[in-house]
Amino acid sequence: MDKQTLFDNIQKKSSFLCVGLDTDLSKIPSHLLKEADPIFEFNKQIIDHTADYAVAYKPNIAFYEAMGPKGWESLQKTLEYIPKDIFTIADAKRGDIGNTSKLYAKAFFEQMDFDSITVAPYMGKDSVSPFLEFADKWVILLALTSNEGSKDFQILDTNAGKPLFQQVLEKSQEWGTDGNLMYVVGATRGEKIAEVRKFAPHHFFLVPGVGAQGGSLEEVAKYGMNSTCGLLVNSSRGIIYASAEKDFGVKAGEEAFKLQKEMAKLLEDYCK
Amino acid sequence: MDKQTLFDNIQKKSSFLCVGLDTDLSKIPSHLLKEADPIFEFNKQIIDHTADYAVAYKPNIAFYEAMGPKGWESLQKTLEYIPKDIFTIADAKRGDIGNTSKLYAKAFFEQMDFDSITVAPYMGKDSVSPFLEFADKWVILLALTSNEGSKDFQILDTNAGKPLFQQVLEKSQEWGTDGNLMYVVGATRGEKIAEVRKFAPHHFFLVPGVGAQGGSLEEVAKYGMNSTCGLLVNSSRGIIYASAEKDFGVKAGEEAFKLQKEMAKLLEDYCK
Repeated sequence: MDKQTLFDNIQKKSSFLCVGLDTDLSKIPSHLLKEADPIFEFNKQIIDHTADYAVAYKPNIAFYEAMGPKGWESLQKTLEYIPKDIFTIADAKRGDIGNTSKLYAKAFFEQMDFDSITVAPYMGKDSVSPFLEFADKWVILLALTSNEGSKDFQILDTNAGKPLFQQVLEKSQEWGTDGNLMYVVGATRGEKIAEVRKFAPHHFFLVPGVGAQGGSLEEVAKYGMNSTCGLLVNSSRGIIYASAEKDFGVKAGEEAFKLQKEMAKLLEDYCK
Repeated sequence: MDKQTLFDNIQKKSSFLCVGLDTDLSKIPSHLLKEADPIFEFNKQIIDHTADYAVAYKPNIAFYEAMGPKGWESLQKTLEYIPKDIFTIADAKRGDIGNTSKLYAKAFFEQMDFDSITVAPYMGKDSVSPFLEFADKWVILLALTSNEGSKDFQILDTNAGKPLFQQVLEKSQEWGTDGNLMYVVGATRGEKIAEVRKFAPHHFFLVPGVGAQGGSLEEVAKYGMNSTCGLLVNSSRGIIYASAEKDFGVKAGEEAFKLQKEMAKLLEDYCK
């Protein structure tokens, strides 16, 4: 999917909501466990009830990988079920030397047909570039994450007084464009997003931290939005586990709708 | 596997050889393609012919992931076929927020039964710690890699004049011990290994760069070995693709034996 199509969808749905499919056998409603593929059955109903409000779906690959080959089949079926006009993110945090990253790219962009994948920057250019060579596919590079451990290395001052995450933002813009490269930016601090936005004014940010992980949507929009929205804000647990009963799909839809309404207003106020 | 057992195996076999199972359908001998599981059949024969000379096997997970669910089955079968006294490394470069890293740990340590996994440090402590909580399992943390892109961030000077990889080495030693934490250290520069060794005198290093990626084994041993060897030196393509004919297993064994003989001498000279 190209950037214009993504922005068109955002405008059409008045939403920049990404629904995180962190689907966990121990958390889904128990009546699903008798299904042949409970994970897919859960995702299917979540997608049915949230697709009108979401512009992206983000399966967290670890949840599927932890189930072995069967998990990969559930993932593949889920991906095929997602409507084609909705952006898909493989939240996989991959990254390795060139020939290996190329294989990961094949896994997620050819073997499966994801629009994007999250990538870790530690190994530098040749670990990221292979993902950027696929037309209409995206890298979402870790810049500043929202977890406690982000303080260990990402905010360290490097030469020239730049924190490491700024080095990642600046250097990676030599490798890709705002048409094939996005960044993961933690949501918990509005002013911090404003600072990150200065170093990447035109790129989309994937913001993982609204909902169970905390973070104010208003702050994120106020400090992070640009003229093509520039934000995909993820919510996982707050939506998909809104109910543990048979109505989980309906309740997920209600939560997604709440966020979409809030987002519609924020797009009006800040998408300029 | 605990550290003493690993060192015992190194002494018993007079070897610190790790064989990288970067098994690629397009590179294996064509007569194997008629097998039900050509990848496993190839790995099986490689293991049969190299197990006497190797103390570790390292499947590069990307190669299996790129083949979809079937690839994971080949990986699982390969892992089960490796003799139990040989250390196994999932070269997966994983790392995510705590609850997600925990699932990756389950995938590789429970769903499969690897002894260790390579992990990327960018997200800090809570992305690494979940892997360290499994008894007799290991994290092999990226410190200084051997690829060109290692220069982009890993060698940046951080505050206190320390390059980033040194920060990774120092900080991570607060999270784990030399009994559950190793480091990936690129092999191409002997003096650089000496520098890294200063910051982690007792830990094992996984050295990925001998063979097709270049790097001198003698230099690595001279500058990197410690009193419990402290090195696992990987060779992938130089061994597993030594022949593209029906004799590929035998030829792989011969290459592994050559390296083992060299290693026996180096252990005598430098393991003190």
